[in-house]
This record gives sequence, structure tokens and C-alpha cells, in this order.
Amino acid sequence: MKPTKLAKSLFEPDRVALIGASSDLSKPNGRPLKYLLKHGYGGTIYPVNPRTDAIGGVPCFPNIESCPAPVDHAFIMLSADAVPDAVRDCAAAGVACATVLAGGFSEAGEAGRARQADLVELARSAGIRLLGPNSIGLMNPARGLALSANAMLELPTLSTGGAAVVSQSGSLIGALLSHGEARDVGFSKLISVGNEADLTVGEIGDLLVDDPVTDVILLFLETLRDRDRLATFARNAHKAGKPVIAYRVGRTGAGQALAQSHTGSLASSDKVLATFLAHHGIAEVSMFDSLIEAPRLFAGRRPSPKQKGGVAIVTTTGGGGAMVVDNLAHRRIDVSPVPATVIDRLREHGVISGGGLVDLTMAGAKPEVVRGVISDLMATPEINAVAMVVGSSARFHPDLAVDPLLDWAGADKPLAVYLVPDAEESLHRLARGGVPVFRTPEACADALSSLLRWQAPVDPVAPGSLPGISSEAPSLTESGALKAISELGIAVAPSDVAHNAEEAGRIAAQIGFPVAIKIASADIAHKSEVGGVQLNLRDSAEASHAYETIMESVASIAPDARIEGALVQGMVSGLAEVILGYKRDLAAGPFVMVGAGGVLAELYDDTSVRVAPVSPDVAREMIEEVVGLAPIRGYRGLPLGDLASLTEAIVALSTLAGDERIAEAEINPLVVGDVGEGVVAADALIIFDTSGARED
Amino acid sequence: MKPTKLAKSLFEPDRVALIGASSDLSKPNGRPLKYLLKHGYGGTIYPVNPRTDAIGGVPCFPNIESCPAPVDHAFIMLSADAVPDAVRDCAAAGVACATVLAGGFSEAGEAGRARQADLVELARSAGIRLLGPNSIGLMNPARGLALSANAMLELPTLSTGGAAVVSQSGSLIGALLSHGEARDVGFSKLISVGNEADLTVGEIGDLLVDDPVTDVILLFLETLRDRDRLATFARNAHKAGKPVIAYRVGRTGAGQALAQSHTGSLASSDKVLATFLAHHGIAEVSMFDSLIEAPRLFAGRRPSPKQKGGVAIVTTTGGGGAMVVDNLAHRRIDVSPVPATVIDRLREHGVISGGGLVDLTMAGAKPEVVRGVISDLMATPEINAVAMVVGSSARFHPDLAVDPLLDWAGADKPLAVYLVPDAEESLHRLARGGVPVFRTPEACADALSSLLRWQAPVDPVAPGSLPGISSEAPSLTESGALKAISELGIAVAPSDVAHNAEEAGRIAAQIGFPVAIKIASADIAHKSEVGGVQLNLRDSAEASHAYETIMESVASIAPDARIEGALVQGMVSGLAEVILGYKRDLAAGPFVMVGAGGVLAELYDDTSVRVAPVSPDVAREMIEEVVGLAPIRGYRGLPLGDLASLTEAIVALSTLAGDERIAEAEINPLVVGDVGEGVVAADALIIFDTSGARED
Repeated sequence: MKPTKLAKSLFEPDRVALIGASSDLSKPNGRPLKYLLKHGYGGTIYPVNPRTDAIGGVPCFPNIESCPAPVDHAFIMLSADAVPDAVRDCAAAGVACATVLAGGFSEAGEAGRARQADLVELARSAGIRLLGPNSIGLMNPARGLALSANAMLELPTLSTGGAAVVSQSGSLIGALLSHGEARDVGFSKLISVGNEADLTVGEIGDLLVDDPVTDVILLFLETLRDRDRLATFARNAHKAGKPVIAYRVGRTGAGQALAQSHTGSLASSDKVLATFLAHHGIAEVSMFDSLIEAPRLFAGRRPSPKQKGGVAIVTTTGGGGAMVVDNLAHRRIDVSPVPATVIDRLREHGVISGGGLVDLTMAGAKPEVVRGVISDLMATPEINAVAMVVGSSARFHPDLAVDPLLDWAGADKPLAVYLVPDAEESLHRLARGGVPVFRTPEACADALSSLLRWQAPVDPVAPGSLPGISSEAPSLTESGALKAISELGIAVAPSDVAHNAEEAGRIAAQIGFPVAIKIASADIAHKSEVGGVQLNLRDSAEASHAYETIMESVASIAPDARIEGALVQGMVSGLAEVILGYKRDLAAGPFVMVGAGGVLAELYDDTSVRVAPVSPDVAREMIEEVVGLAPIRGYRGLPLGDLASLTEAIVALSTLAGDERIAEAEINPLVVGDVGEGVVAADALIIFDTSGARED
Repeated sequence: MKPTKLAKSLFEPDRVALIGASSDLSKPNGRPLKYLLKHGYGGTIYPVNPRTDAIGGVPCFPNIESCPAPVDHAFIMLSADAVPDAVRDCAAAGVACATVLAGGFSEAGEAGRARQADLVELARSAGIRLLGPNSIGLMNPARGLALSANAMLELPTLSTGGAAVVSQSGSLIGALLSHGEARDVGFSKLISVGNEADLTVGEIGDLLVDDPVTDVILLFLETLRDRDRLATFARNAHKAGKPVIAYRVGRTGAGQALAQSHTGSLASSDKVLATFLAHHGIAEVSMFDSLIEAPRLFAGRRPSPKQKGGVAIVTTTGGGGAMVVDNLAHRRIDVSPVPATVIDRLREHGVISGGGLVDLTMAGAKPEVVRGVISDLMATPEINAVAMVVGSSARFHPDLAVDPLLDWAGADKPLAVYLVPDAEESLHRLARGGVPVFRTPEACADALSSLLRWQAPVDPVAPGSLPGISSEAPSLTESGALKAISELGIAVAPSDVAHNAEEAGRIAAQIGFPVAIKIASADIAHKSEVGGVQLNLRDSAEASHAYETIMESVASIAPDARIEGALVQGMVSGLAEVILGYKRDLAAGPFVMVGAGGVLAELYDDTSVRVAPVSPDVAREMIEEVVGLAPIRGYRGLPLGDLASLTEAIVALSTLAGDERIAEAEINPLVVGDVGEGVVAADALIIFDTSGARED
């Protein structure tokens, strides 16, 4: 496939300009020239610097217009103030794309954001594409295109290979380069995307999907900037059979706060981002080593169908095997029992094996035994992958210890190898032979777990019909929210708003006792805290009296609140209380959440989250994931809840994704009855987006 | 200090015998001779082999008696069957200690256990100490004592240093040796303890506490065999100021099952073993890399007092720093805010810093800036440790990037360094300079977290007075258990056993309504499952009727159970229900447990565990640790529970540790009232040890 114009100018430019190139090649602005020369870039380099005629023997030009031939890609290394003019000049000179090194844009406060917006507008109107700003540049090792100020380009040579790196951190592309070199992981492209003002991770990812020499795409993520483009790219990668593997920083509260201050972007919660990536078929690893070592495990593979089964472990050291068992089990990956075929085979060698591990220590780990055992394991349907743990023989007898393993490079089922001792020669033999090899039991288990959990992108679900909601106030009152929830097809407790004590008694009698009465005011979010709730009222007199008590309390505690009246609601009971939530994350979009109700579930943060809207199958999966819902799933013989109705309610709430005005919605509690008795919403909340960040 | 006779014969023998030495030096039985020669053992080697005169130029002897001078240490490499005679001969020849290589003992079923017991008895009566059986041997690199068949001794040289390794896995000592060599971690001793038939981890650890060249002791553990000896050693190590750092396999269910089948030992739960180690002042790391990289961080340090504060992070790469932040936060270690001193200092260099990270990228990371910033951080009281994250400069400018860090080797507060790129030269400079250096953000955070959580051994607590309990049945009835609990000083719900329906009504009236009635039978553990429980009985007639209903149901469902009658008990209510447990773990000894009551707490496995008995301070800590007890600790303004009474109840239950007959005890629920209202046990269970494994 012929590269697009953008791909060509980014990755395979015939002529590059280095705008602001320093004549001191050791300075950051001097490095790109040095690195391009060092790594044998085959195209033409035009350093642009009005104060000198040549740098390092390469003729210099005073400006982009004076370059003798059209430039494909300009690396602008000027200060932030000088960038707009340079971009304008590049566009005028017909440059297709420019990489901007300078920081001081969206990561640098309000003024920086404005400066970036101006820059983007300028580039769009001038018809030039931008990488960055705040990008350290990019590399295409096969072409010697070391178009970057990253100091790791001091490396004597750049290994080439099928892994492409797209990184929101500029320094990390250097770290990946150095670790890849030490472990025979070569790269097809490495791109520092900086602030993604124009070209985003998603658009660059799409170029890599079309790149014939890229077979795995690695993402180092600090934030999420353009979810739609990222989602499209992920789905395209899936169609093209190219695995996408992400490592994220900001997976903890402290990390998120840091990412936010570092990138100037919105911080989404770990759960939301992990859910978003999984939804679109992006695998995620949780260790930095895995990002370096996993590509060989993923290359050429497809996401797993949801399947039973586990990992079989073969070892020549009991202690080393045990470390992998522990690390897999810790990540809730099953360790496969040793199949009968293997037990029989080992018995021939006088070894009694069993339990969770094929321990070849006593069989002497001869190559023919290892080959036979792995063949047997690969042929066992319940085994999804094999982990081979190699002891001291990896250090001194790589020929015997690891060469037999090369047979399984690219086999249908993955073989992952963990070398227990420090064993460089074996590491290189396996890596060069295309066998995934790991230096730690943790990274081995992390990468295997990531591979086995990896799922295809979830099929999009169309939002159904939506209730007509007026969003004049910042949120709906409880009665308004319950009405909207009811229009979604979720049963709600019978209720009506009373405007005086007498009416409260009358409505209560119509609904039937016992009832609850709750203050109705769009200004009061936490009704209990203002004495605004009375429960278990057993007759009209109690209801009327409760109305008065509530009004007195609210008038005293929240005198400024606008009061609509009080909601009189039938009390509902069932097997369990559930919380259903909906949220439109500013960065990652709409999500639906289910959790067990009550204070304990809140303390344990026991919820399941998915991108909204969801299908009934996904809603059912969510119910399974919530530990605290075990009682209504039949735990210890307890009565089953109406999970079919709960599933429908989750699906229904998730369709709110079709209404971009809604920032948040919550049903708490949703009371779940016995099988056949349905679910009933007893309280609800709908909040509109007033951030101004809405995309409509 | 002069070594004891045992230490000398184990670690510094003048003469060693290799019993069963093979004349083929490549065979396992030939290797020790090869390795002793290769690594320059300065003592005398007597290979013992009746079929040859010399091996590798070293004169051979037909048996131990014929060796020309007294042997300090014999390495017995014969098959299991031949071991007893060899041990007997060694003892007769005055050998102080023998290491036994052969397996086939306690790790090999019933016959193996008997064989091991015989071997131990033989050794004790003959007055010879044993390492193993199933030991791959031991090493003292400084003396060239490579008395082992571990193939890693093929290494050209053995580095020496202050870290001693005591390992239940033989192969892992080789892995540690190879990784230590690659990272400049030298070892004082490496000992494979095998089955610990005679010399246990604890006794060997004690020898290392007295070893002048050992400064940190590393344990690779698969099981726990002699808790008292291990505890004594750990406390001695604490007194001597030598940190003990453990890595355990078997931290998951799958791992425990494996460890049990692999070692033939008892498997204790992860929580119990982690608690045991922490109780005795042993630090624990959770990654294998940390075991290799942490010793330099721990050497010369004392356990932390319980303190506020966190880790300050300095970085020359934003992305690299963020990875350390995430990994620390994931382990619940606080990241310290940047102090004002550092903000001022950086402002002088035109850098605005803040948030959770001192990012020196823009300050150019000049040595004087790095030195100044680290000095400021070390001088900040709220900062407990500093992590320095070094980017690409670590690869190409070790002199600038890491030499300034050498100033803090052994500083009062620890400095840990994470090198983001692959940077061997910097790694070696730091390691040789005594600065803790890490290759991954995960191991850096794991080791720091282990250091900051590390606590001194807990002071022993004397068990108080115990109830007089008769242990004729396998367990006590509920009334018997409640009586025993009451004698411990814990209030119990008023109750008495009724023997007929009329008596049930009368007792109920005496107690006061409402009451519960529960079947009283030592044969029925799960009373609800046989229809043996009726609650909320409001008068004598209801109570009498409930008695009859219960008896009918039990007679039909459990006709063979011996029935004592039915327990009539006052219903108690309070703010929360708690579960208190006590268990004597067969390997790790007595523990006390507290958790929130009810099915959700059980599902979330939300409990706090300590070695019993506990002090009131420790009991209070336990209450703080249980997430589900937040509501009675004042969460969201909810009413406080009587935590003082709960503390007393935990302390009281934990004194059951004084009665070795008791295997398990449980109060479920213990009802916690408002402050001042106390706690009341509503159900209790006491089970005696019938395993025959009791040590009395």
C-alpha cells in the first residue's frame, strides 16, 4: 500500500527542514541534525538558521522559503512565541506537516491554551498538519529518520522491528528505545504526540494501521484527548489484525492529579479509562516492562473469545514456577491442571507430576522431553497458553535450554518464557527467534493476563427512545427525575407531589400505606441532611403531620431553598437494593454503572462500569461482576432476585447516552424483587451538563 | 566475634568431605568438587568415593574414616537410602555437620516423612547437625566455599557483599547469585535449607545475625516450618540492627496448593503468614526483583516508627516520575507535596514546580540543582524518603546524572533511584557506590513501600486468665461457648437452655421479650439449615410454640443429632454486627480476627488479623483496618459505636491463645452498641483441636 501524503511527510519525508537548528550539535536544537546524520537518514536535510551558512558540514538556509526544494516535514525548534510565524512560513512554502518542539501551550494554563487554539486555527486555515506542540519528535528507524531531540538517539544504531510506539510522554520514547535495544525489540516508528493539538493519538494510530511494517501498536498514555478518533483507530486496528497495547500513567488518584497538572487535560478515573480502552478492543498492561516485552506475545494474535481455560506452566525450577503461579493467580488467571497426556509422558521418564505445575527438574529437562511436554500441552483444548519457566540451564546451556522453545514462535497458542536467572544469551536467542521472553515473573504474568483478557471491540448499541426532558434547571427534582426514569421503561414507586399537609394525607391514602414523604426542591440535593425525609408513615394523619415536620425543618435549616412541595411515595421493599448510575465523562464519554446499594457497597467501591449504551448481554455481565450482588445471584442458597428486570433497567438507563445534555443520572435505591416481581426505582436524580464543555 | 562451632563447620570449614563425589565433574555429584576448586576454596577437600583414587587431581578416600584429618563439614550426595549410614559414619568420624542433597524425605509422602523422622533421630543421638535433606548446599563466596551442586556456580567469579540468603528453594539461590552479579549485589552466604529436618531457617538465621560480614538477611520462603525458632531469630536480628527481608511464594490459593505439594508442609493463608512475618519485624517484598534490589535500601536501617509522611519524587522525565507516583499510590504510600524550599530554589532556575513531583526537566538537571533539591527534601521533616527518577542522561552521562546521587549513600533518610532507560553504567556506579538502584518503577515502589511499612517486632502480650473449659466433645455447644466467652469478660445475650416447650415460655418471660430460640446440639453446626432457629418471639405462647416447631423440624431433617434442648436468648440490637474470630494455625500459631458482620463483609473478605494475644493498642488498630466498620467509626456523621468495648472484646478473645486445646473460636455476631452501651455476643462457637498436631 502506498502511504498517504500525511504518512509520507510524517514518516518517510524526502526532505526535512530543521527550523531553528543550533550550530552547537550538543544542544537540544542541534541534536536532530546530529542524529539524522548519525543514523543515516537517506533524504535531504535543510537546517534553517539565518546566523550561519552550514552546520556540521550541512548547508544552512536563512528561512524555509530559501530551501532549494520543497520540504515534506519541518521540525520547528523555535520558542513558543516564534512558532506561529514559522508555521505560517512553512504552509506558504508548501510544507505538508510540521512538528513543534516548544512547550508553553495547552499544558501551561489559560494563556497557553489560548495560544494553542490560535496555532491550530492558523494551521487549519493554512492547510498544514501539526505534530505537537510539546513533541520531542518522531523516529522511523528503518529510514534513519531520527527527527527528534530525544537524547536516546545517541545510541550507536537503532533496531528495527514491527512495534510502533505512540507516546504522550516524549522522554518515554527514548526509554522504550533503549530497553528495546537491550531485549531485541525493534521499532517501526516512535512518535511523541505532545499536546495533540492537531494530530492525535487516534489519527496517528490510523496511519500505523495502514503501515505495512507495523504489526503491533503500543500506546503510552497520560490522558485521553480525542476519544472518537481513538475509538475509530482501535476498531480499524482490530479489523486489520494489529493488536493495540496501552500502558497508562494516572491509574491512581495521585497519578491522575499529576497527569492533569502535567498535560493540562481532563482527568478521568482509572475505572472509566480502563473500561473505555477495553470497550474499543485495546489491551492494557499494568507494568512498564510488559509494554516492552508484550509486543512479541501479542503480534499476529486476535483477542480471545470469552473462554474457560487457563495457563499451563512448565518449569525446570520449582521455586521459579511457583512465582509464576502466584503472579497469575494474583491476576485471577487460572493455572491449568497437568493433563493426563503429560502425566503419562513424564511417568516414562520416572517423574511423578501433578498439581498445578509440570516440574521437569527431575526429568533432567532434556530437549526432547521439553518438546514432548509442550506439544502435549498445546494440544490440550482447556489450555489457552503455556508459560515455560527456565532455571540455571538458561544461563549456561542456551542451546539445550531455550533452542527447543523456538519451535513455538508464532504457534497458534502462545508460549511465553520466563528466564529465572540473569541469562542474556538465552534472552537474545528467544527474542531473535520470535519467542516472547520475560525477565521477571511479574511481567510474564502481567502480559499473559493482558493477552487472555483482551477482547474484541464491543459492538455499538443504538440508544433507544428517550424521555422528553426539559433541562432548564441544573437538575431535575426527584419527581421530575422519577418521571423521566419511568419514561425509560423502569418501574418507579408510586408517588405524587403534595403542596400542603392535608393533600399529603390524601395522596398517601390513594397510594396505600406505608408511605415515605420527602422534600421536593431542586435546590436540595441531600434531603436527609435538612430533615427532609420521613419514612414508614402508616396513615393519613401521620402523613399530614410528617409533611408539617418536614416543612418546619427545611425552613429552619435551608431557608433559601425554593420548595415545590413534598413527594409522597409508596414504600417498596424487596430482596436487595441496587444503585444504578449514569455519567457522561468529559473526556471518555457516556458510562453506565451498577453496584450494590447501601453504605458498605460504597465503602468497598464495588461497582461494574461499561461504556453506554449497553446491550442486555453486557448488562448481565455487569451484574455478575458486582461482588455485593452475590446474594441475589443465589449465593448460599439465598433467594434469586429478578435479574432479568435488573438487566432491562441497566440497558434502559444506559440509553441516556443519547441525550448529550445529561451529565449524570442515578437511581438509588433500585429495589430488586424476587424473580418475576421486577425492580422499582425509589429515588432518582438527573443532573445536566453546565460545564459548557458539551460537544454539541 | 569468634564463630560458634556450628557456624564454623557450616560456613568456614577447614576441611570438607564430598561423600559420593562423582568422577564426572559435569554430573551434579561431581559439581561441588569442580566449584570448590574453581572458586578457590582455601581449605582441604576430601572427595569420598571407593571406586577411584583421585578426581580432578584431588586424592579420593574410600570412606569418611579414612580421611587423613578431621572433617568439619560433609556434603552427602548419596541416594536417600544410603544417607543414614553416611550420617552415622560422619558422626562416628567426628564430623560436626553434614549437608544432605538427596530428596525423597518429608516432601515425598508418608514413607518419606517416616524416613526423615528416622534420619533426624539418628543425627540427634549421634550428635551431628544436618542441613537438608533436599538441600542443594551452601556458599560462602568470600571463602570460595562453593559447597553446592547449583549450576549457577559455573559463574566465573562470585561477588561478595553483605546480603545473606536463606532459601527454601535450592534453585533460587542460583538465580539470586546471577542477578546479584549483574547488579553488583554481593552475598555473604547463600544457604539452601531443603526440608529443614534439623537446621531450620530460624537457627541458620541466628547464625547470620552473629555473622560479622552479614548486614541484611534475605529469606525466600515457600512454607513455615518452625515458627518459634523463626520468631526468635527475627527478634535477635532486630536487636542486632540487621534487617530481615522475605519474599514468599504461595501468596495465592493456587500458589499455596503448589507449595503444599512441593514441600509436603502445611499451607497457611497468605494473610496469616504476612501477619506472622510483620508481627516479628520481618519486612516483606512482593516482587522477586525487589528481593534482589532492596537489600541496599534496607542495609543499616531500622524499622519505621508509625509515622505520617511520604515519599518525595524528583525526576528528569515527567513520564518516568509519573510511573513511580502511580506505583507508590497503588501501594498506598503517600507522595509528598513539593516543599516551599524546593519551589523557591527552582524558581531561581526559572522553573515553576508544584503538584506531586519535582520535575527538573526544564532546570536542565544540572548536578548542583539536583544536589540542592535533594538536600532540601532530605531536610523536610514530613518527607520519609526520596525517590530520584533519572531519564536518558543516565544512559549517556552517568557522571552528571548519577554521580551527584552518591553523596546520599547511607544517608539518614533513604534515597532510592529508578533508572528509566536501560543504563548499565549508571546502574553499576550507583550500586558500587552503595545507592539503592532499581530497574523498574514497580520494584522501586515495592521496595520503598516495604521499607516504609516495616515495623519493629510487636512486644509479646501475656495471655490473661482463661475460662475453665472442658474439651471432651470436639466442640462446645452454643451455650457452653457463650459461657466460656462470658468468663473471658465479654458480655453475652441473656440465655438459658429449655428442655421442653413450657420451660421455653417460662425462661423467655424471665429474660424479657422479644427472644430468639435456637436448637442446642453439639452435633449441629449450622442451626438455620435444619430449621433450628426462630427469631422475634413476642410472648410466652409464641416461645413455646417456636420450641415445638424447632424440635419437629430438627427431628425430621437431622434425626441422628443428639439434642440438649433449645437455647432461649434475649434479642439484642445495636449499631452494627461484628464478627470476632480466633484460630490456632497449625504452622503459624494463634491469631485473632475482626471483621464486619453479615454476608457482604464475608463476600468482600474484609477482616483484620493479628498474632494472638493482642494488646489494646493493637486491637484498636485492627478496628481501624476493617473498611466495613467505618459506619461505627463515625463515617458520614453516623453514630459512633462503643469501640472501647469492642477493643476489650478483641483483647479478651485473643487470650484464648493461652489454651492450646482450642483450634477455633468465633463470636458471630457481636452486637456493638452506642458509645457506653457496650458489646454483646449473640452467638459463639468453640472448636477443639482434634488433629493430633498439637505441640503439648
